Amino acid sequence: MKPLKPEIVLTGDRPTGKLHIGHYVGSIKQRLISQAEYQTNYLMIADMQALTDNAHDVEKIRESVLEVTYDYLGCGIDPEKTTIFIQSLIPELTEFTVIYMNYVTLARLMRNPTVKSEMQLRDFGNTVPIGFLNYPVSQAADITAFNATLVPVGDDQLPMLEQTNEIVRHINFHFETNILKECKPILSQVTRLPGIDGNAKMSKSLNNCIYLSDDRETVSKKVMSMYTDPNHLRVEDPGTVEGNPVFTYLDAFDPDKSELEEWKDHYRRGGLGDVKVKRRLEKILQAELDPIRERRAEYEGKANQIMEMLLESSKKARIVAQENLAKLKSVLGIDYQDMY
Amino acid sequence: MKPLKPEIVLTGDRPTGKLHIGHYVGSIKQRLISQAEYQTNYLMIADMQALTDNAHDVEKIRESVLEVTYDYLGCGIDPEKTTIFIQSLIPELTEFTVIYMNYVTLARLMRNPTVKSEMQLRDFGNTVPIGFLNYPVSQAADITAFNATLVPVGDDQLPMLEQTNEIVRHINFHFETNILKECKPILSQVTRLPGIDGNAKMSKSLNNCIYLSDDRETVSKKVMSMYTDPNHLRVEDPGTVEGNPVFTYLDAFDPDKSELEEWKDHYRRGGLGDVKVKRRLEKILQAELDPIRERRAEYEGKANQIMEMLLESSKKARIVAQENLAKLKSVLGIDYQDMY
Repeated sequence: MKPLKPEIVLTGDRPTGKLHIGHYVGSIKQRLISQAEYQTNYLMIADMQALTDNAHDVEKIRESVLEVTYDYLGCGIDPEKTTIFIQSLIPELTEFTVIYMNYVTLARLMRNPTVKSEMQLRDFGNTVPIGFLNYPVSQAADITAFNATLVPVGDDQLPMLEQTNEIVRHINFHFETNILKECKPILSQVTRLPGIDGNAKMSKSLNNCIYLSDDRETVSKKVMSMYTDPNHLRVEDPGTVEGNPVFTYLDAFDPDKSELEEWKDHYRRGGLGDVKVKRRLEKILQAELDPIRERRAEYEGKANQIMEMLLESSKKARIVAQENLAKLKSVLGIDYQDMY
Repeated sequence: MKPLKPEIVLTGDRPTGKLHIGHYVGSIKQRLISQAEYQTNYLMIADMQALTDNAHDVEKIRESVLEVTYDYLGCGIDPEKTTIFIQSLIPELTEFTVIYMNYVTLARLMRNPTVKSEMQLRDFGNTVPIGFLNYPVSQAADITAFNATLVPVGDDQLPMLEQTNEIVRHINFHFETNILKECKPILSQVTRLPGIDGNAKMSKSLNNCIYLSDDRETVSKKVMSMYTDPNHLRVEDPGTVEGNPVFTYLDAFDPDKSELEEWKDHYRRGGLGDVKVKRRLEKILQAELDPIRERRAEYEGKANQIMEMLLESSKKARIVAQENLAKLKSVLGIDYQDMY
């Protein structure tokens, strides 16, 4: 066995619904690699962050905490190797956040490209909740509370890590310390999966996701109903592969890349029907999802145990955050225990 | 003895230096009345809030925590009746803050008149630290964490209480609860004392304050050097009372209001010299400050005991904040202990 690399990796999801195959290829697969490769792995269920734009729909978040955990475990995230924790159970994160807020200006947050585009997406303008605007600061808190050195992200999230490292450098420089650690991204290689309707994004509200928890029949139906090339009307017509969700999914899941290339050529030439391509995708997807589904169902039957595990591992994570917060507060001089 | 009224009063100061006689007439006297009148009194040393615009001068804040406490105790704040606590020792306040941030928009904060004028004062514009901009939310956290129903403020701080009550009503309405309590102001009757140089504000940086900890000689020198009516050149000249700091101080401290009115008339007519008026003020001030100074010096000699008291009473306050936070999180559904 290769020795594990001494890095600290932190990732997380907002618990706003069950996870879908987009999460699987976009982040979970990377986490499986990561837990096999690195010494320390944290996986945060970001319920507090989910609140920043779901503040009036707390029940959804609460329910999703367990659902997301079933998804993780079903996919093979191993609680022995990856500390899964619930963000709100680490109150120290809010202390980090409130401290960091003094070192980040309004202008800096407004300039953050990720914040900008997320705000546009939600049509927020100035009516953005201050908690939402502040989420790069809150992410800096999450990352540094665990001294994470590696953070798997899509390239759209790079400005978040820049903000984190800015805070780190600022505090380290000003207080002449090296207590805070800069982090590096692990850039995900896979492009974002589109929805089955061809929409660029899988989204619960668009009802265009294939969930890790979907049963065989549902997966089958969803694949067969997928949007393809709208100009590929008859089997003999030439078809377009690029931007065709069925082929995008195959790119992500098909283990036989050379055969896939042949199929693509065939589709482009004409003579390969959508139904046949979808059947290929379905077979591959079911094979990938079958064991996940099976394990997931098992865990779902043990809700109490799973919740107990989450509470326990959150406690474990909390101790780390507590230690790091105490160090930071000592450097900053926000402590009084030693004053008498 | 009259029974104490069942209200919960919360006030506080930013520990950014020793307290001066402006604090004394502006807030401490009200606190002495309050602790004699109400059942529950909290006095918060707002070190975290002081950080919002002193993030690079933490040492000043740290030192001021004890200095301010000496000032309180010297003035007669009784730790048996008033729970004095250090804000940063109640981490639950940052949890309240981060939760409330989801219910307040950027536009709402930018519209807050107190925030606006404080930002102008500091020439912040968009370079305002987000923590500073957010301080109405942080104050809402402080107030509601203790279920405070009465908050002594100057009328310039009324928008802060409005913001607090907005959050309270919003959450109570949305989550169909009455867990959060609205608060009312105790409006201070005394106008703000100007600096001894005639500047509208006493400020350490302007070096125009009379501190509660100043010795007799310093107080004497400061009073004798006070700015008065610049057109009152000779004793026989008529003088102006309005806006004359010496008379403003006398208004605040002179127990003999009718004799003071006679002196004012005399000064207006001419024939009353500045030195004589200043001597009157000095005598009155020294009489008021003598016992404060004496007690303060005593406490200053017991730094260890005082710090121990602060840590103890902060622990006591923390328990209250913990209970109230647990209730809020339960209403909001940010709790998982009962899910298994």
